[in-house]
Amino acid sequence: MTRAAHYMGDRTFVVNGVEPVPPGPGQVRIDVAYTGICGTDLHVMHGAMDHRVHAPAVIGHEMSGRIAELGADVTGLAVGDPVTVIPLEWCGQCPACLAGHTHICHRLTFIGVDSAGSMQNSWTVAAGTVVPLPPDLPLRHGALIEPTAVAVHDVRRSRLAAGEHAVVIGAGPVGLLIGKVAQSVGASVTVLELDPHRRAVAEEIGLSTLDPAAVDVAAHVREHTGDAGADVVFEVSGSGSGVRLATDLLAVRGRLVVVAIHPVPREVDLHRVFWRELEVIGVRVYAHADFEEAVRLVHGGQVPAGRLISRVVPLDEVAAAFEALEAGGSVKVLLDCGAAA
Amino acid sequence: MTRAAHYMGDRTFVVNGVEPVPPGPGQVRIDVAYTGICGTDLHVMHGAMDHRVHAPAVIGHEMSGRIAELGADVTGLAVGDPVTVIPLEWCGQCPACLAGHTHICHRLTFIGVDSAGSMQNSWTVAAGTVVPLPPDLPLRHGALIEPTAVAVHDVRRSRLAAGEHAVVIGAGPVGLLIGKVAQSVGASVTVLELDPHRRAVAEEIGLSTLDPAAVDVAAHVREHTGDAGADVVFEVSGSGSGVRLATDLLAVRGRLVVVAIHPVPREVDLHRVFWRELEVIGVRVYAHADFEEAVRLVHGGQVPAGRLISRVVPLDEVAAAFEALEAGGSVKVLLDCGAAA
Repeated sequence: MTRAAHYMGDRTFVVNGVEPVPPGPGQVRIDVAYTGICGTDLHVMHGAMDHRVHAPAVIGHEMSGRIAELGADVTGLAVGDPVTVIPLEWCGQCPACLAGHTHICHRLTFIGVDSAGSMQNSWTVAAGTVVPLPPDLPLRHGALIEPTAVAVHDVRRSRLAAGEHAVVIGAGPVGLLIGKVAQSVGASVTVLELDPHRRAVAEEIGLSTLDPAAVDVAAHVREHTGDAGADVVFEVSGSGSGVRLATDLLAVRGRLVVVAIHPVPREVDLHRVFWRELEVIGVRVYAHADFEEAVRLVHGGQVPAGRLISRVVPLDEVAAAFEALEAGGSVKVLLDCGAAA
Repeated sequence: MTRAAHYMGDRTFVVNGVEPVPPGPGQVRIDVAYTGICGTDLHVMHGAMDHRVHAPAVIGHEMSGRIAELGADVTGLAVGDPVTVIPLEWCGQCPACLAGHTHICHRLTFIGVDSAGSMQNSWTVAAGTVVPLPPDLPLRHGALIEPTAVAVHDVRRSRLAAGEHAVVIGAGPVGLLIGKVAQSVGASVTVLELDPHRRAVAEEIGLSTLDPAAVDVAAHVREHTGDAGADVVFEVSGSGSGVRLATDLLAVRGRLVVVAIHPVPREVDLHRVFWRELEVIGVRVYAHADFEEAVRLVHGGQVPAGRLISRVVPLDEVAAAFEALEAGGSVKVLLDCGAAA
């Protein structure tokens, strides 16, 4: 028996013993070391995704672990290998897949939401979703590869280049990771954040911050850029005010990257989009190359994964872990799923 | 003395005699053949641009003519050459110019709005704004090079490719030109237009049309594209409903090109932008290469300029020409400015 945290609906988790799932052909079983709790997981707990997550359900998709067992026909992986998982499965048949955009498959399965996730000791997945980790990478850091891949994807889609100036609106975990990935390509970065604690975390990891409630951000960005404006703005706040500010800050031919999920349509200054030939770019999850770059950046320290982990909580205390994250003041909260011991 | 149409404010034009402006160093004087009336010119007549156009003012920027006189230090042009003009002057010093985006100069002068235009017999401009026309191109057609360059720029920014499907929302002159330019790159094109007369004009020049009030356009586009959606939507209606429809129609990684001027912010479905990784692309005027391509397309007949000219009106009847355009039922109305005779 291994232990698994089940979302039971109505803000409730139950941790109990389950039989490990033996890996079928083309699958592997992973002993899970750590699983990070993502904003999406919080939405699940709040019941906002009950149309996709049918209780009882094991969720979780930011993880690290070691290969425990190989199914038939699996090559290139060995028991004991440290790994993470790209939590995507696509149909291969729809127009998006046929056009090569498998990560935006019309029938995408997001593993850990639409199918069983990693908030358990033992997790069985398709071998094709596995990404090897460097042997000397702490497994705690490995649990941050997935959100780092989000940031890598967002920066890649923005075409941000060395010497350009990027503004990140919102300093939650993804905003912080975008800031560090943006620095890794040689851009200068300003992070906008209302919350003083989040600003302090950003400053601690080497990101310049501004409080948009206290500073004329547009004037600051103009001054910083010789009157040009920002080359790229990452909207990670999910707010209408963030969208409005973003178009105001952008330079001619600047790019606004829509990272946050906006549940309702937002007013966008399309006159400014026209006048400055701006681009608004949607971004969603990642491709395999983004995971590879994320591993490189976390392993190399450009993304300081260890400093973004606020707490590590035993799997059995999953409810307390969600409560801690919800209470604010944390960046990343990890569940210890056992295999690192 | 030559004759010039002066916008006097308050929906009024006066045509009177003026002295031709002798070309200074680096300038040329052009005998104007035809000047098209643009939507911007209508806005000027309505007084909506009185903050930029100070009466009395000669407006007009869609033109053709022949070189009448060369100023000092002008090379590569000869008296009698058929020409059109790129009506842009930039500062060369601002961040946009220094980044190579001179057509979006922070201090752009749009000739014919911010400085004297071509609704006159004789027009003196910087030689650098002149674009030669093929000797066998009818000068009436030459007056449509400028709006065709708008369409070329918009299609180029959209990255529309052969085999892709484009939807054009709005079949005014620019919408029709975009449709033909989109066909010229090998795309299939559907034009959406509420007005039956405009739909008829579009069909006459070989564009498929739909009435969005009568047809489920999204279902039609899905069927036409094997459930993928449109690769590119050109929003040329300037309406909030056009913007809403555009994001609904687009395929994964589709591009929404904001051609029309939206005077107020519009609600944009940023969730769809995220979910399908859409792009929203602002477009404004054109660069020199767009004019060269426009000349090629009008000369080669891919853009049927002659069939878009509804009326040609003598310069002295400028008021009647604006009235005819305003009344609807016309595509392009040209002023005959004398030099073609």
